[in-house]
Amino acid sequence: MTLLVAINGWDLAPWLDRFRRLLPERRVIAAGEEFDPAEIRYVASWKHTPTSLAGLPQLEAIFSLGAGVDHLIGDPQLPKVPIVRVVDEDLTERMSEYVVLHCLMHLRRQKQYDAQQRERRWYDDRDQPSARELRVGLLGLGVLGGDAARKLKVMGFDVAGWSRSPKAIEGIRSFAGEAELDAFLGRTDILVCLLPLTPATRGILNRALFAKLARDGRLGGPILINAGRGGLQVEDDILDSLDDGTLKAATLDVFATEPLPASSPLWTHPGVTITPHNAATSDPDAIAASIARHIRRHEAGEPWRDVVDPAVGY
Amino acid sequence: MTLLVAINGWDLAPWLDRFRRLLPERRVIAAGEEFDPAEIRYVASWKHTPTSLAGLPQLEAIFSLGAGVDHLIGDPQLPKVPIVRVVDEDLTERMSEYVVLHCLMHLRRQKQYDAQQRERRWYDDRDQPSARELRVGLLGLGVLGGDAARKLKVMGFDVAGWSRSPKAIEGIRSFAGEAELDAFLGRTDILVCLLPLTPATRGILNRALFAKLARDGRLGGPILINAGRGGLQVEDDILDSLDDGTLKAATLDVFATEPLPASSPLWTHPGVTITPHNAATSDPDAIAASIARHIRRHEAGEPWRDVVDPAVGY
Repeated sequence: MTLLVAINGWDLAPWLDRFRRLLPERRVIAAGEEFDPAEIRYVASWKHTPTSLAGLPQLEAIFSLGAGVDHLIGDPQLPKVPIVRVVDEDLTERMSEYVVLHCLMHLRRQKQYDAQQRERRWYDDRDQPSARELRVGLLGLGVLGGDAARKLKVMGFDVAGWSRSPKAIEGIRSFAGEAELDAFLGRTDILVCLLPLTPATRGILNRALFAKLARDGRLGGPILINAGRGGLQVEDDILDSLDDGTLKAATLDVFATEPLPASSPLWTHPGVTITPHNAATSDPDAIAASIARHIRRHEAGEPWRDVVDPAVGY
Repeated sequence: MTLLVAINGWDLAPWLDRFRRLLPERRVIAAGEEFDPAEIRYVASWKHTPTSLAGLPQLEAIFSLGAGVDHLIGDPQLPKVPIVRVVDEDLTERMSEYVVLHCLMHLRRQKQYDAQQRERRWYDDRDQPSARELRVGLLGLGVLGGDAARKLKVMGFDVAGWSRSPKAIEGIRSFAGEAELDAFLGRTDILVCLLPLTPATRGILNRALFAKLARDGRLGGPILINAGRGGLQVEDDILDSLDDGTLKAATLDVFATEPLPASSPLWTHPGVTITPHNAATSDPDAIAASIARHIRRHEAGEPWRDVVDPAVGY
């Protein structure tokens, strides 16, 4: 009944500590330690070294430690067992904090006022749109997108969402499927992308898509917020679109290469706000407790919940 | 049936335009124009020149064009007629946008990430509190404070409020009166001040009050957000308290002198965020429509609503 914890890019110790406290009757080991492959029943992974999970004959499930499972699906030698994704209230709330914060920063022109403060300049043009005059569009209306949509609505924004299949959320206009994507984009002033990264979504945030966003909004041009995955965006297209006015501004939490290289022109572009992939940080306490619950339910004979469909990639 | 519009510090034209459109059957004139004092029935004021409203024998009511009536109460020669304050949904929503934005900016350390971006530095310490770990305290729990409290609660913050008399808002702990102020301050990590400016509240945001705020919070010290009135705050005390750690940071929309003089050390203090008194801008469309409704109801024989009590000052 051993849990193997395989993490790259994050500090490992807090995770081992939580799992050992929460699953005291089981062995919890880190990838890299010595172990008998046959003892491993569960894997908890965040960007495990690809192919390193092959050859675990008793493996029953793989858990993702963060939002998104592209790091798992992308491993060609991933064992064919259920992949359980994190559906964690804490992670969902943190993502909504991020989305509401950055929509409000654009609405209230916070970066303009920060720049004025540096110049000791008192100026308010008073032509300030209110939240209800701005149309926010959530690209991705799953657990994360749904929660963000509801909170944006409470703040007064005019909110719609797009997803593969139609969703019913009170007060939120739902667009679904390829056929309704253009209509969704055409009513969107601030596009918030929370899509999973799959072969179908890779590079979806490109110039052709930006050109379909609303051009009659109150902010002087459409705005992109990407808190999904770096692979969803074409970074050269973002820069070109900012330069010619196809986009007014972009807030990016994720990048093709992370950490974002110091040489990237995104760092210094005046239209770009950068955060270091921390829109929704996985809280080890919350995520480990959720995984411990999944394991206990499974061992009590219940079916796995929140299982990923590898065919669609999330 | 003439309406006199008396404004200082704002652009007058949009207001005259709205009132003339909304009250086509009445004369709408600006302070400074020629008029017979006996024709004035109503005054719409934003910081009218003190004493300039004396000697209007037929005056029936004075309307404030912005949140707060201290500019009216402070006029020693203000005619003794009902003062009607603005209770406008649009203004309320804008204030809540501001309050939620700035609480989230502190929670999510947005200024730290902005500074890191300027240095092309990718860093996330991952020890990120969530909204439910932060205790926000609203000083002033009237129409504006109540709406902000509800929205902060939806975003996950642990919210309480203090007001002169107890208020019942679901999910919000209400403290009231002088006797409960210290207990309120002692559980507050982010203090949001939306109080009216009255003789009782002038200078209330001082060093003695800051020293009573919670010191065991997740942000490394208490934070002040003042979107009420500049006269509520002692600016030297804010600077001293930031310098010795009594306060961790301050977001100020209002100042003792506005525009804030270029010589003020607040502009460049690293702990201070400044906005140019635009937390809740009066939207001429919304406010003028509200005042036109007040006038019509009054002329239909209904009693005035939203009348200020001069004894308490709001």
